[in-house]
Amino acid sequence: MNRLITLTTDFGLSDEYVGVMKGVILSHAPGARIVDLSHGIPPQDIGFAASIIYSSYRYFPKGTLHVIVVDPGVGSNRRIVLLSSEGQLFLAPDNGVLSMLLTKTNVDSINEVTCDHLFLSPISRTFHGRDIFAPVAAHLANGFSPDKVGPQLGNKELTTIDLPEVLIDQKRGKLTGSVVSVDHFGNLTTNIHRDEYNHLVGTDFEGSVTVSIKGQVIDGLQTAYSAVSREAPLAIFGSRDYLEIAVNKGNAARYFNASPGDQVTLSLNARKR
Amino acid sequence: MNRLITLTTDFGLSDEYVGVMKGVILSHAPGARIVDLSHGIPPQDIGFAASIIYSSYRYFPKGTLHVIVVDPGVGSNRRIVLLSSEGQLFLAPDNGVLSMLLTKTNVDSINEVTCDHLFLSPISRTFHGRDIFAPVAAHLANGFSPDKVGPQLGNKELTTIDLPEVLIDQKRGKLTGSVVSVDHFGNLTTNIHRDEYNHLVGTDFEGSVTVSIKGQVIDGLQTAYSAVSREAPLAIFGSRDYLEIAVNKGNAARYFNASPGDQVTLSLNARKR
Amino acid sequence: MNRLITLTTDFGLSDEYVGVMKGVILSHAPGARIVDLSHGIPPQDIGFAASIIYSSYRYFPKGTLHVIVVDPGVGSNRRIVLLSSEGQLFLAPDNGVLSMLLTKTNVDSINEVTCDHLFLSPISRTFHGRDIFAPVAAHLANGFSPDKVGPQLGNKELTTIDLPEVLIDQKRGKLTGSVVSVDHFGNLTTNIHRDEYNHLVGTDFEGSVTVSIKGQVIDGLQTAYSAVSREAPLAIFGSRDYLEIAVNKGNAARYFNASPGDQVTLSLNARKR
Repeated sequence: MNRLITLTTDFGLSDEYVGVMKGVILSHAPGARIVDLSHGIPPQDIGFAASIIYSSYRYFPKGTLHVIVVDPGVGSNRRIVLLSSEGQLFLAPDNGVLSMLLTKTNVDSINEVTCDHLFLSPISRTFHGRDIFAPVAAHLANGFSPDKVGPQLGNKELTTIDLPEVLIDQKRGKLTGSVVSVDHFGNLTTNIHRDEYNHLVGTDFEGSVTVSIKGQVIDGLQTAYSAVSREAPLAIFGSRDYLEIAVNKGNAARYFNASPGDQVTLSLNARKR
Repeated sequence: MNRLITLTTDFGLSDEYVGVMKGVILSHAPGARIVDLSHGIPPQDIGFAASIIYSSYRYFPKGTLHVIVVDPGVGSNRRIVLLSSEGQLFLAPDNGVLSMLLTKTNVDSINEVTCDHLFLSPISRTFHGRDIFAPVAAHLANGFSPDKVGPQLGNKELTTIDLPEVLIDQKRGKLTGSVVSVDHFGNLTTNIHRDEYNHLVGTDFEGSVTVSIKGQVIDGLQTAYSAVSREAPLAIFGSRDYLEIAVNKGNAARYFNASPGDQVTLSLNARKR
Repeated sequence: MNRLITLTTDFGLSDEYVGVMKGVILSHAPGARIVDLSHGIPPQDIGFAASIIYSSYRYFPKGTLHVIVVDPGVGSNRRIVLLSSEGQLFLAPDNGVLSMLLTKTNVDSINEVTCDHLFLSPISRTFHGRDIFAPVAAHLANGFSPDKVGPQLGNKELTTIDLPEVLIDQKRGKLTGSVVSVDHFGNLTTNIHRDEYNHLVGTDFEGSVTVSIKGQVIDGLQTAYSAVSREAPLAIFGSRDYLEIAVNKGNAARYFNASPGDQVTLSLNARKR
């Protein structure tokens, strides 16, 4: 047994924190394979981490252990939990970061992590990534049984967070959501999922679609950035399966002066037949 | 067969894109060894990526597969190609990013990548790094034969880009080039190659050399940053073998208020004997 | 023998420099396991690198080789040395970056690195990370004997740097130190070590503690960030075992407008019984 381990944190890469976590993992599991999923989660942004991990896990091998340390409550009495779903494991603080997995995947089991004989000693109260998450991850990678980490919890016992909701107005043919993140290219990812759009539009819609943001209107949905001319804006269902607003070879965040929280509306503009 | 894989992208490291590519690679090639060459290519900067990959490949083992995803045309009808040269493989969009390898190395073969049975399904039109490059790379690392990825192409069939040229004035003893990139230290890398300088200067030159940038003149060529005093500017052939303008223990980009595109002139200041 | 290798540099991650070092290491040691400790050391900040490596090495397995390339004197006649201490190896320029290890750990041996048959050829004078550190690290990972890298040196022969000192006023119950770094969260790490505080406070102190910075006073020492309310400042001995000034779910550097060098005073505010 040698589970692949992924790390997702809000630690950034300028400090030694991520490197030290890897040192602890490799001290206990010398052959561990570790992949950085992202260390660029905005500090303490539990909602963003929840959506990144949900969009990404499916691209990793069965048995992968995802370690998520976005943990503003470190050192408080918040629990640490291990969730098993879709053949993969998720080790995280119980602060809502597993919300999307809880509601959208088939959860097999959840255990509270209380196996303190696996923790580093002494345990700091400011860096559980190093002192708890890393050694527990190492032992799980080595084959330690997930159901031995501590007592089982019911789905309802976990903390959940309210993710920004999409307003569905089926009658008027409108989806109202918001920008949830800006990526490295300045692309604006919204919380409007491809499935919500597909449901709204049905199978026989023949009209046009517009997307509005910050008082500006974008016509149509594209399937590739390069479908519009250079520096022109477009709306597209991106690789995370959410509606994305982009600028071909440009930066949409700057183009629209937009940031997380800004409202985005998708409208169908002709009646169905 | 277990080829080393390098990744070069303009994805940055704040998002999960690079991590997801690694997930796909490791799903298909569990023992793959992956090295990040750079994810800091400026967005869509094909020319810079072309020069980074050309300066770097020689430091990797024979058989290495370099995956380059600087791909503003993703989802359009641009081709994806696999180039074999100098005992290494290069998997990239056919957008000019292989230009320097094409003109400066001994290319053994080029194949268009059409082996869609290896691609993820469905294929997004916004993230071929994940859906095409990663799984093809994994199979090549596992030993899939490079000549099986698709039909062979001639060198002349590839897209090339015009890289900023160096003006050689042999008579007046002048090389006129430009800044092509600014590194993390603020060092200014130009497009003036050590070979061009060696050719200009010949074997019996005894005069002095000056380098001008932004109206200022730097005397002499140094061989180490520390050859000048602290905070003093210098010109040097850097580790990429290109003329570099630096400031000892300082930041040349700030010192000269310089950026890519700025003109740089190297002049020989005495007649040859 | 397959030593784990860590890399600590001031190279940043936007350029290809770190990737190229890994290419050289893997060319000579194909099975090498490499961990990035940090590439975010501020350019040429030897003191900060010295403290990061000292705080971190203990979390890595016995036998680990730490390669530290914060090397403003590259290409000058500064030596490169290999230090062995606490069962681990440290390969670094002799510029003071090993100062804390020298004074605070049990050094077993120090050798100057003169084994130039292991170096790349030719050797640039601007990138010894690639041309010297990487190939020597690879050979050490493969089992090359540390005492074969070159002549032995005495502890006193190494360059040391004066790290900012903590003023201990036992009589008045005061420790005066300074901010040494700001991390990704805006936490301010000082040079006041937990041991110095423990020594000052003794075993029977019953009064209160205050910490001052930039004319503001923080009451008490906390053991978790979440011990104070949201956006409130706190003082805490952090995971590096140094006094840290933080803001719960906020950014202390911005809150106090503080940066490295700013004075920090910890005061005991009641007489011992």
